[in-house]
Amino acid sequence: MDPLRFHEGGKLETASRVKLRNKSHLSVAYTPGVAEVSRAISEKPELVKKFTVKSNTIAVVTDGSAVLGLGNIGPEAALPVMEGKCLLFKRFGDVDAFPICVKTQKPREIVKTVAEISPVFGGINLEDISAPRCFEIEKTLVKKLDIPVMHDDQHGTAVVTLAALFNALKLTDRDLETSSIVISGAGAAGIAVAEILLKAGARDVLLCDSRGILHPGREGNNPYKERIARKTNKNRVKGTLEDAVRGRDVFIGLSAPNILTEKMVSNMARDPIIFAMANPVPEIMPEKALRAGASVVATGRSDYPNQVNNVLAFPGIFRGALDSATKITDEIKISAAEALASCIKPKRRKIIPDVFDLRAHARVAEAVAKTAWETGSGEKPGKNYFRKVLTRLRRVAAKF
Amino acid sequence: MDPLRFHEGGKLETASRVKLRNKSHLSVAYTPGVAEVSRAISEKPELVKKFTVKSNTIAVVTDGSAVLGLGNIGPEAALPVMEGKCLLFKRFGDVDAFPICVKTQKPREIVKTVAEISPVFGGINLEDISAPRCFEIEKTLVKKLDIPVMHDDQHGTAVVTLAALFNALKLTDRDLETSSIVISGAGAAGIAVAEILLKAGARDVLLCDSRGILHPGREGNNPYKERIARKTNKNRVKGTLEDAVRGRDVFIGLSAPNILTEKMVSNMARDPIIFAMANPVPEIMPEKALRAGASVVATGRSDYPNQVNNVLAFPGIFRGALDSATKITDEIKISAAEALASCIKPKRRKIIPDVFDLRAHARVAEAVAKTAWETGSGEKPGKNYFRKVLTRLRRVAAKF
Repeated sequence: MDPLRFHEGGKLETASRVKLRNKSHLSVAYTPGVAEVSRAISEKPELVKKFTVKSNTIAVVTDGSAVLGLGNIGPEAALPVMEGKCLLFKRFGDVDAFPICVKTQKPREIVKTVAEISPVFGGINLEDISAPRCFEIEKTLVKKLDIPVMHDDQHGTAVVTLAALFNALKLTDRDLETSSIVISGAGAAGIAVAEILLKAGARDVLLCDSRGILHPGREGNNPYKERIARKTNKNRVKGTLEDAVRGRDVFIGLSAPNILTEKMVSNMARDPIIFAMANPVPEIMPEKALRAGASVVATGRSDYPNQVNNVLAFPGIFRGALDSATKITDEIKISAAEALASCIKPKRRKIIPDVFDLRAHARVAEAVAKTAWETGSGEKPGKNYFRKVLTRLRRVAAKF
Repeated sequence: MDPLRFHEGGKLETASRVKLRNKSHLSVAYTPGVAEVSRAISEKPELVKKFTVKSNTIAVVTDGSAVLGLGNIGPEAALPVMEGKCLLFKRFGDVDAFPICVKTQKPREIVKTVAEISPVFGGINLEDISAPRCFEIEKTLVKKLDIPVMHDDQHGTAVVTLAALFNALKLTDRDLETSSIVISGAGAAGIAVAEILLKAGARDVLLCDSRGILHPGREGNNPYKERIARKTNKNRVKGTLEDAVRGRDVFIGLSAPNILTEKMVSNMARDPIIFAMANPVPEIMPEKALRAGASVVATGRSDYPNQVNNVLAFPGIFRGALDSATKITDEIKISAAEALASCIKPKRRKIIPDVFDLRAHARVAEAVAKTAWETGSGEKPGKNYFRKVLTRLRRVAAKF
């Protein structure tokens, strides 16, 4: 399949949920009938969530500053990726998503623009925005808006990584609390993974970036690196990545190709867990990692077993959030990871569900909606919520 | 049909133009395949119009400041109307349209926000923005952006009114150059109709607003009223609407209910043309106008003959513009009106095509594309362009 041809004319289109076959339809969908709906919303603003696209539509927002492995290619070149993301939202979450590629890279302007167009949307998925700008943008928008906002490169990645790790730990008879973990990569994803691991109960997490082990007070730390360094490295351990991995149980790579050698793996604890998720070339190729003694190996690639793929998280997270949550809290993310992990009976070559397993997406949505309700951030999901979502997803799948 | 129920859950959804049934589809629609498309666009920016939604998607932008007859109800309450508009774009133009309701009513901020999200869109339809702010916003965006921008309340109305007038003049053996015309209403639509009439060749046009005949130097004129007063009323005629209509051939109302009396109609020229388009209650009810001697009567209502309805113009205009034009010039608008008028053999009770007549929409698109090319503002439309558009519209209609 020629990718260029596949994308010609764009991948998304608008469809109607209502019939427009005669003048009587017209007079309800548009004037004069629509005036009644507008009047109802102007009298009771929360009805916008019931009678408009806001009920099921999110924006996939980028400034094109950190797109895939391509870097800062700008809003136009980012658009095919955002469209693809929107498709995945629909295909696996029955979430209507629309790409918003903004022409500015100033965090304050991005926030302002997104806030100004927010009336139409029931949620905001931030995407491919470079660190550390992404942290500030997300934080400000979460505070400013009354709809869920999530930067997927951070939290989608964190949720799926945590889910995969739950199962990998189970397979190697470990638990999160007592395992020693090293994360290579202190960008948006690396820091978010560190944060969720700590929230989920991990006690020994060390972060590395291209300059080695992240420690508090290190020269050139941005405020976000400094903050996470203080949380993860209270003893101010210094050294290289090689020093960091020695004796450790888990390696989580969100960094650069081929930086983990076989020797480094063989110096880790017995039966180490290796998540080498740099794309498209991982920190270590799975064959090598296994040869060096790795017990469970995951990558970001679809041509190897155990693909840690965000698409297992974001559609279900926003499905659940649109239905029941106003904020995507840490509790919600962790419960989503647990739901995802428990969808399958893990094996070494299958620690995470298949992307086309619609039950997994429905389970994530269910966990989000339930936890939102239990923790007081959302509405009570209806009875049979899981079943209803699954039915929706199957109906949508049939259209693809 | 209960309007509220009809609108529940919103009227628009996202659909996919591509298949997503297996991992191989995924790897083309999203990573890694999509990277090739992004790379191509980053090397050759104009390819964004070929390989993304920009090829066929416009924004329907409002600030909710002048929605239908409801006034300044804000962005949320405006959303059902914008969604309805988006549906009409799809139904009658195969244009994918997405509602953008902005949370600010400052012209400069609206311009900035629209410009910032413009990478995704192939055109901008401004909607229900109050005068005189709408003039400045449109003018600035037209200048700033390299995609077509049109405020439909002005130009959609102007095109359909001109089309209807062409046929009404024909039926009453008049021509535009020698007819005397009075326009009641000097808001966005009234001024735009005056402008297009002058461009199309009319020489005697007088505008009235609630304070009577608009004349240069009148106290309280905003700059737009002053400008059009200078163009239309060089002799500085003063007086009431009653004075203005006396002896005139054509009355065009875009103003307020019941302001034109039978007596005023009977004081007009022989066989006068009355377009009473205030909504929902016209300047004069058609029965009355006919009783008073009107030869041809049109309104904005669907329950009377000769409904002057913008939906006859905007889908075809943007269809043609997306295919071939970068600006929607006066020449383009006039050619669209001519095309619309010539779609039917006019009769007194049918001076304008039916909204569901897809040929009319395709003719408008054709006129736009052809004129854009002939006047150097667009690409040459392909052979059989009309046929191709008509086929597209029929295919879309079948889905509604």
